[in-house]
Amino acid sequence: MADAVGVIGVGAMGLGIVRSLVRGGFETIGRDIDATRESLARSSGARVVASAAQTGAAAQVTIVVVVDAAQVEEVLAGAQGLLSTVGPGSLVMLCSTIAPEDAARLAARIEQTGALALDAPISGGPARAEAGTMSVMLAGRRDALKHAEPVLAAISGKRFVVGERHGDAMRAKLVNNLMAGIHLMAGAEAIALAERLGLDPRAMFGLIAASSGQSWMFEDRMARALLDDYEPRAAAHVLTKDLTLANEAARAAGVELPLGALARDLLRATCDGGWRLEDDAAALKYYRRRFGN
Amino acid sequence: MADAVGVIGVGAMGLGIVRSLVRGGFETIGRDIDATRESLARSSGARVVASAAQTGAAAQVTIVVVVDAAQVEEVLAGAQGLLSTVGPGSLVMLCSTIAPEDAARLAARIEQTGALALDAPISGGPARAEAGTMSVMLAGRRDALKHAEPVLAAISGKRFVVGERHGDAMRAKLVNNLMAGIHLMAGAEAIALAERLGLDPRAMFGLIAASSGQSWMFEDRMARALLDDYEPRAAAHVLTKDLTLANEAARAAGVELPLGALARDLLRATCDGGWRLEDDAAALKYYRRRFGN
Repeated sequence: MADAVGVIGVGAMGLGIVRSLVRGGFETIGRDIDATRESLARSSGARVVASAAQTGAAAQVTIVVVVDAAQVEEVLAGAQGLLSTVGPGSLVMLCSTIAPEDAARLAARIEQTGALALDAPISGGPARAEAGTMSVMLAGRRDALKHAEPVLAAISGKRFVVGERHGDAMRAKLVNNLMAGIHLMAGAEAIALAERLGLDPRAMFGLIAASSGQSWMFEDRMARALLDDYEPRAAAHVLTKDLTLANEAARAAGVELPLGALARDLLRATCDGGWRLEDDAAALKYYRRRFGN
Repeated sequence: MADAVGVIGVGAMGLGIVRSLVRGGFETIGRDIDATRESLARSSGARVVASAAQTGAAAQVTIVVVVDAAQVEEVLAGAQGLLSTVGPGSLVMLCSTIAPEDAARLAARIEQTGALALDAPISGGPARAEAGTMSVMLAGRRDALKHAEPVLAAISGKRFVVGERHGDAMRAKLVNNLMAGIHLMAGAEAIALAERLGLDPRAMFGLIAASSGQSWMFEDRMARALLDDYEPRAAAHVLTKDLTLANEAARAAGVELPLGALARDLLRATCDGGWRLEDDAAALKYYRRRFGN
């Protein structure tokens, strides 16, 4: 029989994961602090339980996909926490993007119970989570990776095993998202400049997408922005947080990131401009205001 | 009979263009101030003449692909310049990347002779110039575009008609190259950070190339850099010049480019670090030194 799988945190990504698991034939258990999210999980085919502890008691694999390190800490070690019920034979996957040292520290606490732990940040957005094709970066012991394999196959399209050291998957994700954040702001800067120079921004979009200025973020985000579509598939504050973490990780390693720090500041300014909860494609609105376009 | 085509400036790009023209069956005339380059053009099948004026007298289409605006000016209006021999029935394509206002001003001087002019910056590097698959951005009158069509088909794979106003193709190229420059430095920053964080840079290269941090420049340049291959396909000083022009074009339009200015400064620092004539992938060497990797 397939493992029972718990998903703690059924926001946009978690709900997509629930649906991929149900479709994959897993007995799926959902848990969230928000009753509305829980009812979405229930109507997607998950059984809903009353606490993280109950999730850990019922599931062989528990996926933690809450917002930040404080929430992960609460899920694990708070009242009715996961650490009170997981142990030998169970596995916890830490999928929220948090600081690498937090991931390593929390994974160690999970392992103290006898359970296995994976540092497993995810990427790709809600649509790919729901399609079961998101990307997962993975760091942890081989037996943990082996234990997680069927679940990973159901929820992800690309899996990058970064190494055995917990925290390294978070580091890899932060390095990738550092690039994504810089490219987002570069794309907005370029489109706003094109407008300023009297060029047709949609024609420039096509030209850049087919030329050496191309980036994945440019094609994805500026396509939306040029259609005035700022419905949040990736809210601006999320990448802002990731860039803050990337700069902190760099500082912890003794270096400063010139472009990373500037892109973080530009993302913060986008959030402060009133677009925090809009799609991060709103970077274009920030630049248009800044340039007076 | 096909037009005779002149190529003034047979550096790496110009020589590739000569070879594409010869392969395409055009009578090809080459001219350079450097005799070594001229002999390369000759051995590629071009007839070599002694001045820009002689090129203009012999060719129906003349491609100017020298280094900067001062050289374009010299080719056009210097002693034995092109303007003394071109006129009705001939076309001059300005393919060097120069400031948009310079392109507009020089195109107007060409048109005063009765000749047609195209603002036609190119991109893609020497290998694609030689294969006849480089990209060309184009601005100018419809009759000029029509006149140039057979030649453009022989030398380029992608053609982007930006508009009729001379200078706009340069503007479009500068906006694209602004992105390319930011992405180059972002890629170097990310790889150097990955090294600093104890991650395997080659594994990170694959992860980023398949994830949201992907960019064309990252894939192209960091692939070389991670093989320690800094043979100049695109010397660092060239993109540095382009970013300087992009920032100047922005300033002329009344705005400052935060990421563009920083990327320009980082490119200049790469040049000043002793890597001016190496491939711009040397951005990674700059970052490694900066980070003490």
